[in-house]
Parts: sequence; structure tokens; C-alpha cells
Amino acid sequence: MLEKINTPYDLRKLDVGQLQPLADELRRYIIETIATHPGHLASSLGVVELTVALHYVFNTPDDKLIWDVGHQAYAHKILTGRRDQFPSIRTKGGLSGFPKMSESEYDAFGTGHSSTSISAALGMAVASKLQGESGRQHIAVIGDGSMTGGQAFEALNNVAVSKSNILVILNDNGISIDKAVGGLNRSLVHITASPRYNRFREAVWRRLGGDSDRKKRSRNFLAKMLFLAKSALLKDKNIFESLGLRYFGPIDGHDMDELVKVLSHLKSIPGPKLLHIVTTKGKGLLEAERNPIVYHAPGMYDAVTGKRLNASDSQAIKQSSNQIIPKYQDVFGETIIELAKANPKIVGITPAMPTGCSLNMMMEQMPDRAFDVGIAEQHAVTFAAGLASQGMTPFCNIYSSFMQRAYDQIIHDVALQKLNVVMCLDRAGLVGEDGATHHGSFDLAYLRPIPNMTVCAPMDERELRNMMYTAQLPDMGPFAIRYPRGAAVHSDWRTPMERLDIGRGRCLRPGVDVAILTIGTVGNDALVAADRLRQKGISAAVYDMRFLKPIDTELLDTVANGPFHQVVTVEDGVKKGGLGSAVAEYFEQAGYKKEVTILGLPDQFIEHATVEELHHACKIDADSIVEAAL
Amino acid sequence: MLEKINTPYDLRKLDVGQLQPLADELRRYIIETIATHPGHLASSLGVVELTVALHYVFNTPDDKLIWDVGHQAYAHKILTGRRDQFPSIRTKGGLSGFPKMSESEYDAFGTGHSSTSISAALGMAVASKLQGESGRQHIAVIGDGSMTGGQAFEALNNVAVSKSNILVILNDNGISIDKAVGGLNRSLVHITASPRYNRFREAVWRRLGGDSDRKKRSRNFLAKMLFLAKSALLKDKNIFESLGLRYFGPIDGHDMDELVKVLSHLKSIPGPKLLHIVTTKGKGLLEAERNPIVYHAPGMYDAVTGKRLNASDSQAIKQSSNQIIPKYQDVFGETIIELAKANPKIVGITPAMPTGCSLNMMMEQMPDRAFDVGIAEQHAVTFAAGLASQGMTPFCNIYSSFMQRAYDQIIHDVALQKLNVVMCLDRAGLVGEDGATHHGSFDLAYLRPIPNMTVCAPMDERELRNMMYTAQLPDMGPFAIRYPRGAAVHSDWRTPMERLDIGRGRCLRPGVDVAILTIGTVGNDALVAADRLRQKGISAAVYDMRFLKPIDTELLDTVANGPFHQVVTVEDGVKKGGLGSAVAEYFEQAGYKKEVTILGLPDQFIEHATVEELHHACKIDADSIVEAAL
Repeated sequence: MLEKINTPYDLRKLDVGQLQPLADELRRYIIETIATHPGHLASSLGVVELTVALHYVFNTPDDKLIWDVGHQAYAHKILTGRRDQFPSIRTKGGLSGFPKMSESEYDAFGTGHSSTSISAALGMAVASKLQGESGRQHIAVIGDGSMTGGQAFEALNNVAVSKSNILVILNDNGISIDKAVGGLNRSLVHITASPRYNRFREAVWRRLGGDSDRKKRSRNFLAKMLFLAKSALLKDKNIFESLGLRYFGPIDGHDMDELVKVLSHLKSIPGPKLLHIVTTKGKGLLEAERNPIVYHAPGMYDAVTGKRLNASDSQAIKQSSNQIIPKYQDVFGETIIELAKANPKIVGITPAMPTGCSLNMMMEQMPDRAFDVGIAEQHAVTFAAGLASQGMTPFCNIYSSFMQRAYDQIIHDVALQKLNVVMCLDRAGLVGEDGATHHGSFDLAYLRPIPNMTVCAPMDERELRNMMYTAQLPDMGPFAIRYPRGAAVHSDWRTPMERLDIGRGRCLRPGVDVAILTIGTVGNDALVAADRLRQKGISAAVYDMRFLKPIDTELLDTVANGPFHQVVTVEDGVKKGGLGSAVAEYFEQAGYKKEVTILGLPDQFIEHATVEELHHACKIDADSIVEAAL
Repeated sequence: MLEKINTPYDLRKLDVGQLQPLADELRRYIIETIATHPGHLASSLGVVELTVALHYVFNTPDDKLIWDVGHQAYAHKILTGRRDQFPSIRTKGGLSGFPKMSESEYDAFGTGHSSTSISAALGMAVASKLQGESGRQHIAVIGDGSMTGGQAFEALNNVAVSKSNILVILNDNGISIDKAVGGLNRSLVHITASPRYNRFREAVWRRLGGDSDRKKRSRNFLAKMLFLAKSALLKDKNIFESLGLRYFGPIDGHDMDELVKVLSHLKSIPGPKLLHIVTTKGKGLLEAERNPIVYHAPGMYDAVTGKRLNASDSQAIKQSSNQIIPKYQDVFGETIIELAKANPKIVGITPAMPTGCSLNMMMEQMPDRAFDVGIAEQHAVTFAAGLASQGMTPFCNIYSSFMQRAYDQIIHDVALQKLNVVMCLDRAGLVGEDGATHHGSFDLAYLRPIPNMTVCAPMDERELRNMMYTAQLPDMGPFAIRYPRGAAVHSDWRTPMERLDIGRGRCLRPGVDVAILTIGTVGNDALVAADRLRQKGISAAVYDMRFLKPIDTELLDTVANGPFHQVVTVEDGVKKGGLGSAVAEYFEQAGYKKEVTILGLPDQFIEHATVEELHHACKIDADSIVEAAL
């Protein structure tokens, strides 16, 4: 049946009874495709029925449908004209792993970072109202995790008082919100969402309309009575009703008939409302249902059994039979425990990424000293500042692109007060398949202008350990360490840690013709480039700056006064404002006449592809360094 | 009495009956001082009783007290050893207008931006627990406005599940939250907060303690019964209880006896709790009570009558008898209306700053097209993106330093999707008396790395109008205009608007010896400097770059190839990453050998003083430009 669904218009020709078989087919197609084309799995499996029901009931793309975060939108992509391209997902030139306005008119709003959908839906709804499109529906699908993000609350606070046609669907897969679904609730949602009940309610409201104080009092009284009755029956308090939203649910998000019925009812109710559905993350693949965290993005697996093909490698990359290269995240995860055992001031903080940044290790071993605060980057950083103000040394680990959410908190709460907060920016630089929303491209540029900050990046995992060690020494002040996704360099990485001199770079290789200045892991590529240049008879010096801030001006003086014909800077971040910019600033102000070639990310958003493909395309790989030096 | 209170220890020696007379004296002292030493007024007047009661009941500074935003902390400063310095507030070298850790041990955490206090208090509480300080209390005082900020919600979400000693005091002065204070509620708070009731509750909980399923069910049942009983009595739904917090209140925040009684009770209740107090902003000065928005920061006024001394000038600065120079904010406020009348796509958005940015004019004239979304910068920007995605052209006006809160939304929702959102950054550059937390120092540096952005700054109000006009033309994409606080330049500013060429600067004055490149209003200082230089026989060319991004490379080529001995760049923003940096980058990469002197804000946080004092100290005034050119 799936092969005949080229757009939601085809879908809408089906009988309701055909929808579940279609959903089963759709789910199977996702499981089989992602088994060999790795991507996000468990989230999409959880919303297959919801996706079918939404496109069946609502008139997409005229009605606007926004997927919060967006890694659950695979079924949506398949149903909206992208079925045959689906195996290209997350590969160079292929479909994006997230909704994207430029990819399809059905992707009403691009997502990737969490908690934006309700704000965007409200914007669209207000636009529709101003444009006289009173019948248009605006739907935001948001998970219970994303609902903890402050922006979602800011938006709900505004939605509640708007008179726009907004339907927020809370996709509750049981992580943050208690999913007690009882028969009583189930029957209640029918009462609440049925047109008859709502016609009655609307009629009462109309009769009580008007602006006289008496009418207002009557309305308020009725609203309170309705709420009390419902709340007493639900035996539950409900945050959404507290905010003043009309709340429906919870209902079973895998019951297609129920979904279609309730959504059809809600379609006819004007104004803002929230539907709470309960789903199972990973639904339909037993292994994924059992372990939704691992199957969030499981890599390759057997499409029948669900068994992961490289499960034993999940925490590391095997180089050869007995050499295991760790991931940077695991070096962080193990090193913070090592440091915390020796230094009782250390605590760890992550906003909802314990397995992603490997703080889960510390959460298991030292549960009192490691905190998952939910999707709440702003809170995470100020919480760290509060801890530091009382003498603790928090390590706050946030993915580089998500740290953009806490920019004000870094400036206002940490840097201004010179607090000893260590900010570890995992997934810095180009992250590959997750694409434009997830690349950690901007951190060097946005951290450098902030006073009192130390900003550094390790070239390998031993340096990461040294930087972490140095950061937790007394009175180091605000300290940012950025490092990439994926595998580190050495297999014997548990080397003794040593204190680094703040603001000191190092010469990795002497040379006379060209000086290559790097920060972070691109230093390894520079060494490869230097080897190749030597073969061409060019002597390239390679300097690992280590610190972007304070920058090693003695080293820069040495380079500027050295024999080099040319200076090349390399960084895995935007050119505008990063290392190259800092070197240019210094050279110009010091009056040095050396020419500087800046290698880094160009002034455009970078799409998805493998990290290698992207490094090549952005000209920060070894080949490009050779080319720049020549 | 006030003269004898040098620290809260003196305060605690008083009888409860002496506290209200002291509060009256304190309030009078604030009114009289601020009458001639302008600062924030209405907020502090509203919390005089609360401040006295808090320091009386709690053991500050060992107990930690955090004032959200902090402009209400004047009474706190006076009671904590800063009474005699109080008249120096907000002046160079004097007291800061906000709490500041470096100013007093009683300022447990620095504030200035809203909604951070609960995060910081939780951090402190966790630190106390880890350090074995089980008796220490941690108190966050937060207004109902600040409570709309998403970070406050993120923090409450975490506080609710923590077992730390945190007291959140919701200071409800009636702007966002319904302040229905009834006799029933009043009696309820006594029941709820009385030690007897709580002893009973604790005893029941203890008896029901243990981890068996039966005990858990009993506990849950009891909790639900307590909630239902209370909610039925309160006839109200309560968002804080929905989150799982223990809620007390509302109580009258000007009833000293009540405050002392309730706070004393709460002190003996372990764990997180929230007290809701109701206060009158501006309490004790009739004019301020009547118009708390104007008296938020009223300038000079008569301490007896409250009448403002320059009330007629509130919206403009008189230069001479009949020439009125507008403020930039009013040029924005009037121009957006002018543009919106001609272009139906335009809407206006402000996060809680309608009078501050003058969007209130549009809100009055075009209520359907102008939106105050509350203290919610993140939501404001994504809301704008949602509007733009449907063909609207939103102008989103956010103070420069507050825009730091929406950094991720600018990147992820606006720039990545190339949406036509016009971001107007008011209060850009040094703002003067509000100090370090409020200077708009970083915007040029943090916006420049973002692809797809146009970033510009007007030299005067006519240019501001031209930039606003240009920004709303079709398909301009993400467009940022930054302009300063305070008065513009010309009195005849309602000139016809014209389209500017994107990325084109202009030559303000030709010259041969030195080229001065500026962006924004410092261009006016550069012209003054050029005059002075001419008197010294030096011919200085002055270029107004207008656009930081895209930067005018043709102009830069002309300058680089010109006769100048030296190039000086000037900007009212941090040196690292701004205009000077952009010029240095370009010169280095193009291989120009011209030396560049960068004038801008140094790499440190800038304290409070007048704008003129700060421009001089930071060397971006006319004198400093002359000096740099020499």
C-alpha cells in the first residue's frame, strides 16, 4: 500500500480501516531502511500512527505541521513525497535527518534543536490570522523531554492567551512525565473532545458572552467548575490547564482509530489546545522498545531481530585486533571521575545528554555529584555558576551547538563573576550526518569576545585530559574546552595528567618555509600535511596553539619574526571571528607584515555528509592545508 | 533608627514591632535619595517590608539571598552595610545598581538579566548539601514578570525534584499573574505554613515512609487528597503545585507581621518551597503606585509630591528652546508605524520592553500587529521566525545585551532558514549607569560569524530610518540593526526614507594622512576628531562602514590602496571579533601591508558610569581617536 502513497492526498483517499495496515508497512520500511542506512530510529517508530493520523485528518501542507527537534520525522518524510529518497537520508546530497523548509513544502519549519516548535507554530498562527486564513490549523508535535526546555514554557505562556488555531501535541513517551493512562482518563478524553460536549460548552460560553462584570463572573465560575470537575475526576493536577490551556488526553498514541477520532474532533475546536498522547519509543522493534536510549540512533542492526551489528564497539572504535581508540566523550566521562575522586569540589552537569557526553558513567558511580537537568541549557550554566559561587568546581558538558542556548548565561553568570566553571563543549566542529543544525561551528567565535574566559581545544585525548586537569586547579576562572565528536587518536590514553601553562601553545614540528598554526584536532591533519609538504621539498613548521584565549602572543611573535614565507591558520570552526581572525588582529596591530591564510569554515551553513567529506569540502583537511601552503 | 543598622545583625536585635517603623524610614530614605540620584525606584519600594523581614528572619550572609534581576535590591543594599554609600549608586566608582558579589558578601549572586535566581539558588543549595551545610537556607526572590522567562521554568522543574533547602519567593506585583487575594487564601496560608499543620503532615509522611508499593500508594493517595482539598478550597489551579512544588500563599507583602510569621515558619520546613507574596510596585509614593511603569526608573523627581522634574522631556531631549532631538528608541517607535502603514506584512515584537524600546506606540495604534511576549527572548525570536516563514516581516526589538538570550534562535531558526526577520538591537554599545550586565558590548562580535546575516548600525536617526526601510524590502533575509541608548543627532529627523545598498559604506570626509573607519554612532565622534586633526595639520578621511556584514570590501580596497599612513577603526563594541577584527582579517588575507589600529572596548567587563565617562575610559571618544591618529 505504501508504494501508492506519494503525497498525503493519496493517504486521504483511504478508509480509516486501511490506516493501521499502512502504518505497519511504514514502520517496517523505516526499520528495514535504517538497519543499513544509520539514523535516528526509536523516536520515529514511536510516532508512526500519529504521523499517519495527522496527515489523514489535517490538510497538509496548507495546515502547518511542525516536528519539535525533528528526529522523529522519518515517517512524515516518507508520506510526503520522499519515500524513494529515504535511503539517502543523512548522506551527502541526500535527505536531511531533520525537517527542512528547503527540502519540502510539507516541512513547515526546520528543526534540530529542541523546544522551538510551539513558538514557531504561534508565529504561523498569528500570520494566518493577519492574512485572513481563519481555517488554517497549526500543529506542533513536541516530546515530553523537549517540554522541559524553557522556550517551550515561554511559548505556552503566550499560546494560552492567544486566540489562534494552535494544536500542541505532547508526545509523551514516558521519560519526564508520569504516563499513568487509566480507563477513566480514556473515557474522559472522549467526553472532552467530543463535538457534542464541546458544542454544549461553546453554547454555554456564547450565552454567557459579553463584557458585563456579571457575565464575566459567570464565565469564570463556569470555567472553575469545569476545571474542578475534571481535575477531581482525573485525580491529577495538570500544568497545562494551570497555564490556561485547553487540555485533552492522555490517549494511546498507537491506537489509530482513537487518534483519528480525537484529532478530527480537535480540528473543529477553534483556539489553542493541547493533546497529550502516550507513545512507546521504539514501538514495533522489541529491542528498541526495551532499550530506547541505545536505539535512539543505534547504528547498523539486523532488521529482523533488531540486534545491533557493532554493539560491542558502542563505546569505542577498534583500530586493530587489540588496539581500542576511545571516543573523546568517553575520555571525558572517565577522566572526570578520575579527577572527581581526587578533588571533592568537582561535580558534573549535563542537560539531557548523559549518554551522549558520557557523564552517565559519573552519574552511576557518583550519583550525588552528577546532574542531568533535562533539556535546559540556560539553567545548566547558571546552576553551575551557583555551585561555583559556593566553592565547587562544576564541569558543565554541553554540545557546542546547544551551548548557543546558554550564551547569555556564560557571559552574565559565569564570566562576569569570574566563577570557576569548566564548560566542556562536546561535538565541537563539524559533526557530519546530523548536519547544519548540529555542527559546532561557532563556539570559538562566540566565546573569544567574552572577557575573563580561557578557551582551549585539545589536539588529542591526552591533551583533553591535561586541559581537564588544568581547568579544575584552583582559581582558574571560566574555562571552556571544546572537542569533537567521535574517535580520539591514541589507544594508550590513560597517561598521567599534567598542568598546562595557560595561554601557551607548542611547536609540534620545526620548519622554515611555512608556519601552520592550528587549534584542536586539525593539528593532526596539519602534521600529515607537513609530511606531504616535506616530500615536495617544503619545510613546514606546525604549531598547536592549544589556547584560543588567551592566545600565545610570544609564539605569534616568534612566527612573525621567523623565516616563514607564509602563515597558515587552520581551525574546525567559522573563519569569521576564530583563530585566524585572532592571529590577523594581532599581526595587524603589532604591525607585522606577514601574510596570513585562514583555513576554516566558510561563511555559509554547512549541510550534512560524513565528517571527512565535509572537512574536504570546507578545505580544512590535510590536502587543503598542503594546497594552501603551496 | 536606620542610622543604627549597619548590618543585618543590628536588625535582628530589634523587636518585631520595630520593624515596620524601620521599613518606613528605609522607604523614605530610598525615595529621598533616588529623587536626586536617579535610579530604579518602583521595584525597590515594593519590597521594603520583604527585605527587612528576610534579613530579620534569615541568617544572612550565611543564608544565601538572591534578588532576581536585582533592580529591587536597594533596600537590601542599605541594610547590608551600604547605607552611607547609597547616594553614590550607579555613578562612577559608586555602588552598582544591581547586586554584585564583589561589592558585598551579602550579594550572594550578581544579577541584572532576569530569571536566573532560581538556577543559582539551586546550585548553591546543592553545594551546601555536598559541603554538609544542612542548615543553610537559599532564597530566590523573583517577580511575576521574571517568572515568564523560560530559564525560571527550567529551574523550577529541577527544584521541584531536588531535596535542597530552597525558598522561592514569588513577588507578585500584579503584572502577569492574577492577584486575587481573598480572605480564604489568607487563612489557608496560615494553615499551610503553620508548624502544627506541617508537623502533622510530616508525621503522616513518616508513618507512611518506606519503599514498599503499598506505602508508596498510600503516600500518593494522601498527596492527591491534600492537593484536591486545597485546590478545591483555593478554587484555583496553581502552576507551582502542578510542577510538584510546595506552595504557600498568597500573602500581603506589605504586612510585616505576617511576613515575619510566615517566613519563620517556612524556615523550619526542609526542602524546596515557594511563597507567593503580593506587593504594590512603587509602594509608599502615590505617583509611583499610580504609574509604576514610568516610575520604574523615573529620573529626578520631587521627593515629597513625587512629581517628575523633567516629565515633559520623557520622550525626547531638548537641545534648545524649540529644537527637540529624539531618542533613537522613539525614532524606531515612530518609524515602524510609518512603515507598517505602507507595508501590511510588518509586525512588531518586544519581550517585555514596550516602553523601553517604544513599541508601545505601535501597540496602541495597531494592537493586532504588535506583540509583547513577556520576558521571553528565545520565544520572541522563534515566534518572529514563524511569522516570517508565512510571509510576514517581523521587527523583533530586543536590547543588545538581552539578545544574548536568543543567540541560538537567531542562528537556528532565523539565519539558517534565511527568514526575513528584522532584529533591532536597542541599547547597543555602552549604556552607562546600568553597568556591566547591561552594556551591549558583544553584538557585533557575536552576530558577525552567523551566515546569511546582514548586520548594520546607523550613525544617526536618519540612517536608522533608512536601515529600517531597507530591512523591510522583499527578500532581505535576516537583518540586524544595532543602535544605542539615548538621544539621536538631528531635530529634523522625519526625512524621506531611502533604500541603502547592502554592504556599502560611505565616505563622510575625504583625507590623505589617516583613514578612520567607523560603524554606528561613533562616526560622529570620528568627525569631531577629524576636525581637531585638521587643526593640527593632519588630513583625516572618515568612512562610515554602515554594514559590518557584508563588509564593504571595495571601500576597504580603496582605503588599503590609498595614500594613508595609517588606518584606525572605531566601534562601540568589543575589539575581539568586531569591525576592527573584520578589517584586519580582510587586510591580512588580501595581503595589504597597511597597519590597523583598532579602537573598541577592551577585553574586560566595563563597570557603570556615564556613557561619556565610559567612552573616554575605553578610548573610543573623539580625543582617543585623535590620539590614535597621531
